[in-house]
Order: sequence, then structure tokens, then C-alpha cells
Amino acid sequence: MAHTASETGTPDRTAVRLGVDTVLRDFLDRKEQEAPGPEFGSLINGLRRLLSGGKRLRSHLCVAGWHVGGGHSDASVVIRVAAALELFQTFALVHDDVMDASDIRRGHPSAHRALAAAYVTGGGPRGRAEAHGMSAAVLLGDLALVWSDELLHTAGLEADALTRVLHVVDRMRGELVYGQYLDLLSTGRLVGDVAAALEVVRYKTAKYTVERPLHIGAAVVDAAPDVLEACTAFALPLGEAFQLRDDLLGAFGVAAETGKPVGDDIREGKATVLMALAVQRASESDLRALHRLVGHPHLAEDDLQRVRAVLEATGARSTVEEMIEARREAALTALDQAPFPAAAARALGEIARIATVRRA
Amino acid sequence: MAHTASETGTPDRTAVRLGVDTVLRDFLDRKEQEAPGPEFGSLINGLRRLLSGGKRLRSHLCVAGWHVGGGHSDASVVIRVAAALELFQTFALVHDDVMDASDIRRGHPSAHRALAAAYVTGGGPRGRAEAHGMSAAVLLGDLALVWSDELLHTAGLEADALTRVLHVVDRMRGELVYGQYLDLLSTGRLVGDVAAALEVVRYKTAKYTVERPLHIGAAVVDAAPDVLEACTAFALPLGEAFQLRDDLLGAFGVAAETGKPVGDDIREGKATVLMALAVQRASESDLRALHRLVGHPHLAEDDLQRVRAVLEATGARSTVEEMIEARREAALTALDQAPFPAAAARALGEIARIATVRRA
Repeated sequence: MAHTASETGTPDRTAVRLGVDTVLRDFLDRKEQEAPGPEFGSLINGLRRLLSGGKRLRSHLCVAGWHVGGGHSDASVVIRVAAALELFQTFALVHDDVMDASDIRRGHPSAHRALAAAYVTGGGPRGRAEAHGMSAAVLLGDLALVWSDELLHTAGLEADALTRVLHVVDRMRGELVYGQYLDLLSTGRLVGDVAAALEVVRYKTAKYTVERPLHIGAAVVDAAPDVLEACTAFALPLGEAFQLRDDLLGAFGVAAETGKPVGDDIREGKATVLMALAVQRASESDLRALHRLVGHPHLAEDDLQRVRAVLEATGARSTVEEMIEARREAALTALDQAPFPAAAARALGEIARIATVRRA
Repeated sequence: MAHTASETGTPDRTAVRLGVDTVLRDFLDRKEQEAPGPEFGSLINGLRRLLSGGKRLRSHLCVAGWHVGGGHSDASVVIRVAAALELFQTFALVHDDVMDASDIRRGHPSAHRALAAAYVTGGGPRGRAEAHGMSAAVLLGDLALVWSDELLHTAGLEADALTRVLHVVDRMRGELVYGQYLDLLSTGRLVGDVAAALEVVRYKTAKYTVERPLHIGAAVVDAAPDVLEACTAFALPLGEAFQLRDDLLGAFGVAAETGKPVGDDIREGKATVLMALAVQRASESDLRALHRLVGHPHLAEDDLQRVRAVLEATGARSTVEEMIEARREAALTALDQAPFPAAAARALGEIARIATVRRA
């Protein structure tokens, strides 16, 4: 059941999405009008395209954090803060795709691919297109980051609220870079270290995607420490479940639903929990197959099938399903015990469901 | 003559450098202690290495801006703000080197090269080293950016001063990305467009390197509008002169002095003012030589000599020298007319000299 604003005193999911989309559209339109020259058009259009997709998970969590922290009437400021988080996430996606050399994002060419194509269309020499696309995507990510800050700085926060929010944002961004760096260091090494894989998940996803958006919303209204702790108790298991679901979808999902090529984690040699479990448990011949195939960028469908068979045969897939379920339960238990308004707890329960049972 | 603190009421150049270096060292030491794991060590050491060089031009300008804006007693806050600018500049350098695939920076391997080497030393597969280095450098740049923000947010600025400073910082960063993007779009196209090349200089250097650091220092103390305008009148011509000097050093300098390989602008096909003038004026055979050679990454020394000969024969080199001199004069004239304290004006005059007559 949807929660209407009148029922809960806080905007429902549709209102959050609409509000965030409007803020982002207006911001980018203004940036386009104010640009010193027309050249920025391709970058701004790149941001528009990237921002048109996505689940707005961080926005919903940010508004929920504001609500559990005590926010109840005018949500316009926290909606702007949430929009800044979406622009920050666009930065993270663009640089992530550059680092992984991923070609597809949200069902469309990734930023560096689109910018390479636009460069050739604009008369740029074809021989420079790929390098140009990568460079332009690094800049596009940088632009998304600095504009997300500008959106945050001009969100209408009072000075002390801005200070509180910036403090959490600073932590969140350091944690994300840390998680991304752990991810990068572990990629391409099949060492079967489940604890290390979970550490990446904790920083790259659980804290960045779930805990900190809640805390940022809560910081807007100066939530009490026990509220922040309750957010963490809910967020960390849910965030881990979210990433573990993502890993399963990356190996076993349907490209038409996920919007990205299935099997890319395997082609890139990502050290996911799923893969770490399989490496730990694989027979000698299965382990040889993993070492031969995982991390090779041009795997054919039957190679992927061979890897999937190992993920199944070792029970890695079903163990990850159990891990997701255990973490979802832990998150919901934490939610039951949290000092949150009933409507906010219900909204978070709904987010927990969407984040863990999704197919995309 | 050095200006001592007692003489001018503001820290002299040595004190600024020392103060900024201390802030940066303490900040990175604390970050290393607080890191969730030891893996961040290679990134933090990368930042230390990159921060150990440099002219601290932005720091000196930031403190000068604070001084002309009315700052006079305790400079500790503006020193922290200046340190944040240096960390931001490290972000810009690292991503710039990634985009240009430059191997050398400040006499040492560039960040992506150093991180690729550290990856192999740490047991990473050699075949992934280059891609890893590039990805890690993108992250290193991101980390420098988010930590520069954290340093700024915790510089001890009062809430209203922070708001003013963030407003200028937001503009500066958008302008830098714009300049970098113009640079990227024009690289590899020998079209002889001097006005377009000057537009890149304006955003990439004049505003970013000179005008905004002055404005940021001035914003710390809420300088009057006429002071900000006088900063701009001084900064833009000086910043153009600075970049034009950089372009000449890039083509005709001495690698042992500049700390980077001479000729890289030519190998990368940078659309500098110098090159635009040469293209405009070149004879048919010289133009053919430029099209054949400029933008080719592996030019030998005699190829570079051929290009340099065209830059000389067309008078492009001497015209750029004249342009530097005219801009230096314009900056000094603006300085004479500025409502600045005498000691601050003297310090800025000294910066103008260093920035335009340097050999490195």
C-alpha cells in the first residue's frame, strides 16, 4: 500500500521520486543556461541520461532518515539533499564504469562509450575516440561530484544543519573511495577470502548506499544518537543483503531486467562473496576452470555457463541466498526494535523488501 | 626581499609554505591512523608524494586574498583553507595525468604509473598493472577531492564564512571542469583558433589558478565587492601569462627544471595558443609538417626539433613572449590601481614575477 503524505506526514515514494526528479531537472536546465559556452551540452546531456534511470534508493532512504530523525512537515529541503545524493551516485557510477571499462549502464551505453560516440559525431578523429571517451567520462564524473556539492550547498539548509550534513557526507565519501579501492585491489585475484569480500561490501555498499543516506537525512533534523544507531543497525545488514542480491543478479540475472550485461562480474574477475565461496569449496577440476575463465574479458556464453555451474555445484549460490535472507531478517528485527514512527518503519520495511527480492 | 610577519601583519611566503605543509602532513597522518585497514597506505603515500612538490602558488594567492580582503591577525584558518586548495589541485593533476596518459609529474612517475608499479610489487598480476594503475589513479584523484572538501569543512571557518567560501569553491570547480573539457575537445585538432585556445586558458588556468584562490581567501574575511573586482582585474591577465609561460616551457623548456618531459604538449596535440599561432601563420610545407607530427605520442627528438623550428619561424614563440609581457604589464597596472594594503600589493607583485619569468 502506498503511503500518502496526509497519512504519514512524510512524502510517499512517488512524491519523493517526483520531487527529486524535478530538482535535478531544474538544476541541470539552469546549468545549461548558465554555461559559458555550448560545449558543456554533451556533458549535461550525459548527466540527464544517467539520472533518468535508477531506483532512487538513496533518495528514499535519505527522506526516511529525515522522517525517523523527527522531520515531519516541509520536506523540500531534504528532497534537495536527496537529489544531491543522486548526483553524487552518478559520479560514482561513471567512474566505476571507467574503472571497470563497462560498456553498458542502465540499459544504455555507459558514459565513456556515449561520449566517445558523440566525439566522432562531432567531427573528432575516430582514432582518438576511445581515449577521448574515457577522459571525458572522468571529467563527467568529476562534474557530477562538484555539482552534487553545489546542489547540497544551495539546498536551503540552515548553517548548523549544513555543518552536520557535510560531516556525514565527508565520512560517506571517504568510505566509498575506500570500498572502491578494496574492490579494485581484490579484482582479478581468486583467493576465496569471504571475510575480505564482505569488507568490500560493507564499505562499498552497506555504508555508502544505505547507512549514510539515512544518516544524512537524519542530520538534516539533528536526530538523537539512539536514532542514528538504530539506523545503522537496520542499514548494515540490509546493505549487505542488497549487494549480495546484486552479485547474484550479476551472475544469474536477466540482462533485459538488470540493464547491464549478465556475467560482467565474472568477466572482470570481481572478488564477490559468491565467487569467494565457490573458490573455497570447488573441487580441483572446478577450481582449475575458475582460474582459467574468471577475469577474462571475452568469455562466451558456454564459458559463463561453466562458471555458473561451479557456483551452483559448490552451493555458493544457495549459501548467498541464505546470507541474504539472514541479513534481511536482521534488518527487519532491528527495525522492529527501532524508535521510529510507525509510518517510517513501514516505509523502511518496504525498502528492505524491494532491495532484497528485486530482479533488477 | 622577504616580507616577515611583523612587517606586514600577514605571513610571508616561507611561513605560508611551512604552515600549509604542516596542515597537509597532519591531515594525512591522521587519515592514515584512522583508516579502516592498511590498504589505503599506497593511496595516502601517493598523495604525500604528489603534495611534496609544487610552487604552492594557490596557497600564496589564497593568503594574499585574505590579506587584501582585510585579514590581518591570526592566519591559521586561511592556511587550512589554502591547504585544502592544494589537495584540490592534487586531484586536478592526477586526473589530468590520467586523461593525458602522462608518465611524469614533478620529476617523478605520475600517479597512475606509480600505482601500477606498486600493484605489481604487492603481488598483483603484471597483465593487469596498467589498467589497475589508471583505475587506482582515478580513485586517488577522487580521494584528493573529497579530502580537500573535508579539510575545508573542518578548517575552523565560522558558518557564514564557510557558506561564502563554498560558494566561490563551487564556481571554481565548475569552471575548472569546463576548462578541462574545452581542452579535451580541442586536443588533437590543429585548427589555428587563437581565441578558442585563450578561452581554454581563461577557464583552465586564469580563473582556476589565480582568480578563485584570491577570491576564496577574500571570502574568508567577507571582502568588499571592489576588492573582489580588483582581484579579478589583476588575476585574469596574470593567469593567462602564467599559462602562456607554461606552454612555452612545455615546448622549449628543460625537463630537469620543469619536472616533466618537454614536448609532451606537442606529442599530445594540445591546442595551445602557441600552436594556434603557428598553424595560422605556417607556410604550406610547415603546415604539412605540423599535421604530420603534432599529436603523435612517440615523436623523436628531431621530430620535436622540426616542430620547434616551425614555432620559431612563424614567430609564434616571440608573439607568445609578447603576449606574456603585455599581460604581466596589465596585471601590474591593475595591481597599482587596486585598493590593497601596500604589503599585500608587494607580495602579489612578487607572485606575478615568479609566475611569469619562471623556468619551471
